[in-house]
Amino acid sequence: MTTMRIAGAQIHNNVGDIAGNVQQVAEAMQWAEQQEADVLVVPELALTGYPPADLVLHEAFIDDADAALAQLAQQSGRTTSIVSTIERVPPQRLWDSRIRRVGIVAKLLCGGEVRGTYQKRLLPTYGIFDEGKYIAPGNHPGAVWRIGDTIVGISICEDIGADEGPPEAQSIAGAQILLVPNASPYYRGRAEDRLANVRAIAVRNGLPVVYLNFFGGQDDVVFDGGSLVVDADGQLIHRCAEFVEERFCVDVPVAPRRPVAESVISVHTRPLPKRPTPSEPAVAPHRDELAGVWQALVLGTRDFARKNGFPGIVLGLSGGIDSAITAAVATDALGPENVLAIGMPTNEIQDEAQRHAEAVARHLGIGYTAIPLPPIEQALTRALQPELNRSTTAETTRGLEAWSRAAVLSAFADERGVLILATGNKSELSIGVAAHGDLIGGFAPLRDCPKTLLYKLAEWRNARGQVIPEPVLTKPPTAQAAEDIELPSYDVLDPIVERYLEQEARLEDLIAEGFDPATVEWVLRRVDDAEFLRRQTPIGVRVTRTAFNQDRRMPISNAWRPHRRR
Amino acid sequence: MTTMRIAGAQIHNNVGDIAGNVQQVAEAMQWAEQQEADVLVVPELALTGYPPADLVLHEAFIDDADAALAQLAQQSGRTTSIVSTIERVPPQRLWDSRIRRVGIVAKLLCGGEVRGTYQKRLLPTYGIFDEGKYIAPGNHPGAVWRIGDTIVGISICEDIGADEGPPEAQSIAGAQILLVPNASPYYRGRAEDRLANVRAIAVRNGLPVVYLNFFGGQDDVVFDGGSLVVDADGQLIHRCAEFVEERFCVDVPVAPRRPVAESVISVHTRPLPKRPTPSEPAVAPHRDELAGVWQALVLGTRDFARKNGFPGIVLGLSGGIDSAITAAVATDALGPENVLAIGMPTNEIQDEAQRHAEAVARHLGIGYTAIPLPPIEQALTRALQPELNRSTTAETTRGLEAWSRAAVLSAFADERGVLILATGNKSELSIGVAAHGDLIGGFAPLRDCPKTLLYKLAEWRNARGQVIPEPVLTKPPTAQAAEDIELPSYDVLDPIVERYLEQEARLEDLIAEGFDPATVEWVLRRVDDAEFLRRQTPIGVRVTRTAFNQDRRMPISNAWRPHRRR
Repeated sequence: MTTMRIAGAQIHNNVGDIAGNVQQVAEAMQWAEQQEADVLVVPELALTGYPPADLVLHEAFIDDADAALAQLAQQSGRTTSIVSTIERVPPQRLWDSRIRRVGIVAKLLCGGEVRGTYQKRLLPTYGIFDEGKYIAPGNHPGAVWRIGDTIVGISICEDIGADEGPPEAQSIAGAQILLVPNASPYYRGRAEDRLANVRAIAVRNGLPVVYLNFFGGQDDVVFDGGSLVVDADGQLIHRCAEFVEERFCVDVPVAPRRPVAESVISVHTRPLPKRPTPSEPAVAPHRDELAGVWQALVLGTRDFARKNGFPGIVLGLSGGIDSAITAAVATDALGPENVLAIGMPTNEIQDEAQRHAEAVARHLGIGYTAIPLPPIEQALTRALQPELNRSTTAETTRGLEAWSRAAVLSAFADERGVLILATGNKSELSIGVAAHGDLIGGFAPLRDCPKTLLYKLAEWRNARGQVIPEPVLTKPPTAQAAEDIELPSYDVLDPIVERYLEQEARLEDLIAEGFDPATVEWVLRRVDDAEFLRRQTPIGVRVTRTAFNQDRRMPISNAWRPHRRR
Repeated sequence: MTTMRIAGAQIHNNVGDIAGNVQQVAEAMQWAEQQEADVLVVPELALTGYPPADLVLHEAFIDDADAALAQLAQQSGRTTSIVSTIERVPPQRLWDSRIRRVGIVAKLLCGGEVRGTYQKRLLPTYGIFDEGKYIAPGNHPGAVWRIGDTIVGISICEDIGADEGPPEAQSIAGAQILLVPNASPYYRGRAEDRLANVRAIAVRNGLPVVYLNFFGGQDDVVFDGGSLVVDADGQLIHRCAEFVEERFCVDVPVAPRRPVAESVISVHTRPLPKRPTPSEPAVAPHRDELAGVWQALVLGTRDFARKNGFPGIVLGLSGGIDSAITAAVATDALGPENVLAIGMPTNEIQDEAQRHAEAVARHLGIGYTAIPLPPIEQALTRALQPELNRSTTAETTRGLEAWSRAAVLSAFADERGVLILATGNKSELSIGVAAHGDLIGGFAPLRDCPKTLLYKLAEWRNARGQVIPEPVLTKPPTAQAAEDIELPSYDVLDPIVERYLEQEARLEDLIAEGFDPATVEWVLRRVDDAEFLRRQTPIGVRVTRTAFNQDRRMPISNAWRPHRRR
């Protein structure tokens, strides 16, 4: 059976760091030459990082990417390196009145030259993606390339997302193998979805598929790696580990020769040499779901801190589960020596909670300092007393507490140049019960984690070294205790929110599914009303397909109030 | 000359308020019938408001819009009402892997029925617009309609933005007049751009054009009205006032009959009756630029407060120009009785600044209360003293001050249920010199106003009743005084930022234009670095074509550092 030797480099996603990215790719190219690989594949936009957002509007940025590509082309040898970048393309006007001048491309580098260009056809413009805003689509989805005696198709990320798209066109044009550079961010269950899709593409087109992905955090998404090679029957040949750097080199059996379209472009016509198999392909075990979530939280937090120049982290530690998990994530991300937890006892926080906070800090080995809030609150209350005529409400008191905490954390952050982590979770954000001051920070790792998931994560993390004292996991959550209204339990709240955000669920649907009608009404109304609060919160790690402010974005000013039973 | 009687209703943009919108449109329809109008035109998405964002993903929302349209159709009489809404359309997959199922349409209502549907063809997906994310494009850009003996074309908003688009197709198909429902948000200079575009469309196609727009604030954009009628020679026949509700009814001379495409659809074939002219068309004077900016700030602030249920506003008044203008905007928006200004003197703020703040409050007739910050800061400093080992930096001190102010404002807001306005301006946001605590609030009216514009606005507003004491306009700005680094003057900073954001300007360009090289480098680097701060700020009124977080959105984690001279 004819094989093609494919090298892959699952590299880190560094947006804007063209010089660093060139170095990553250049090293992978050298290594691939040493492996006598026929082809090297790297992720989508390996030269610019993903997503480049408004960077593609800067002419100087495009120039820098062009120069970087030229440099890599010069370094290319016998291996054909498929390197993705942005470049200027013939201007096009398509779905609106504006002209797009930049494409996402995969360049075929070989023998010191650029030997070909594939331009991405399908441009994701949904959820977190907005490529339609910046990018021009390619007009040759059926382009195929001769590399030695093998015909190769290249599709970029979204190109393989449709039932009928570039992979089908390339298969028809004669491709014997499909190479797919990707920038595919994590959500819970993404690895399974990805494997199923790649298998379907392979089987449908009778082609092996090589799928390369980034790893690393970029603002509010994390790329989880997990690059794949499947054969033409959809069998998994190789899988990279998730969330880490990895290179692989695999001899992939290509599909039998088919009639080839006349439009095939030759990269080179040297026959591919026969060589001993480089190494056994390996299928890295897929992490279980909780391990994946944890790793995403850690990597997202680490890379956000690192890329934005923060040497350490400060956060408030209350003795509750949210801040305990946030502290554990911070510790796993930056190391205990770079995390400082601040306990901020109030008159209302019992000694027990503070003991729990201290225990968490001790277990993690992080710094811990208690700053008593009452003197600060008293100064605030005294200063405000003459003016706040009415008896101070519980909300005002909680607000003053929250701002006092923000002021304390901010002082530490300013003094030490560290990043403040906010500790809010998705359940709170969904119904808007968090005080605004509690959402202050540069990053909120747990903002896309529902409370029910946090309990599971706590158990998962405790099983790998006790972090969170048992009583913290069993005592009633603070939000429920503190709110003036009676909250539904998280076991009820979280599934309603999830079903509502997954779009299909209407009020009637949820009631038909057995949820209490009054509860459903209350939750749906709160979800819509809380957009005002949510828009003012820091970004955090996307963990689901329905992250607020990313996948889901309601108008803040929104008069639609459908949540009455009819 | 044959005329068509066109009624137009420039109504308020209420996102999600389908019931309220139906009432607005129904009243306009009744009125148009009374005027014996042949056609009524209302803005784009008059039934749902614009932009509906994720509301279009909710099946129940589409159902509500459908029901509302059916109700209006029943009420239609001899006048053909062109009412725009969303509706389910045949599913399409186009620029990515996802299927779009909803279109933006204009329905032709007449004689109790829906007599036709035009589906918007061009879907703006740039700057603040993201229609490509949700909406399916129409496939019949050349559709034309017979109304009596006149052939009518309908294009929706972006449809008239391209050199070659639906207006051209409709003109070729025989249209004698073009009706254009719009949802066109304000920026400085938009009215001039709009008139020039409408004139060009009219002249190019030899057709009169009727252009209807919304007015009103919706989150971070303001719709400025200014609806237009131009004749086939591009002469302005009628223009609505800006930023207000208005109806008009004008007999518009239609273009001579042309050969008509076979695909013309009849709304009705009754001959259009001759009647006496209803009223003289009137061309409302275009407001000068500063008046336009002021009105946008006022309307944006008013509608944000009103739509989100805030009866009043609280803000900090420092004695500087930014907070003085914010207070004046708030007062013009909600009335002096609903605005409370809080002076928060510190040891560093001289008596003079406080006297200025008091003067501003007195001039505006708003409530004013001083809450001295030193006791609060002292409590914070005392609580933190043992832990902040190093001598406290100026940044920490400013941070504690800022958070103390945030806590004070937040207490008033929580107690009274009012909206906190943040007072930051675009110059500060562009280079990230504002303290985070100073950007706390639910809305930041001035966030898209550069400081140089604020000086002009202050003079403009003072000329209409003294608000801001003269010394405030002449003393050096606080940011410059407070920063440890030396800021360029705003006369230099603002143009550099504007040129950089307008995309064309590279470092080299700006230097060639005569700006000091070191200053340009410093500014461009600061603009990129400040994305971290900017993303945590409240929304505000878009005033330029390059509003941060709307039109311009850089990655927060961004390693591109091109701002070195080579």
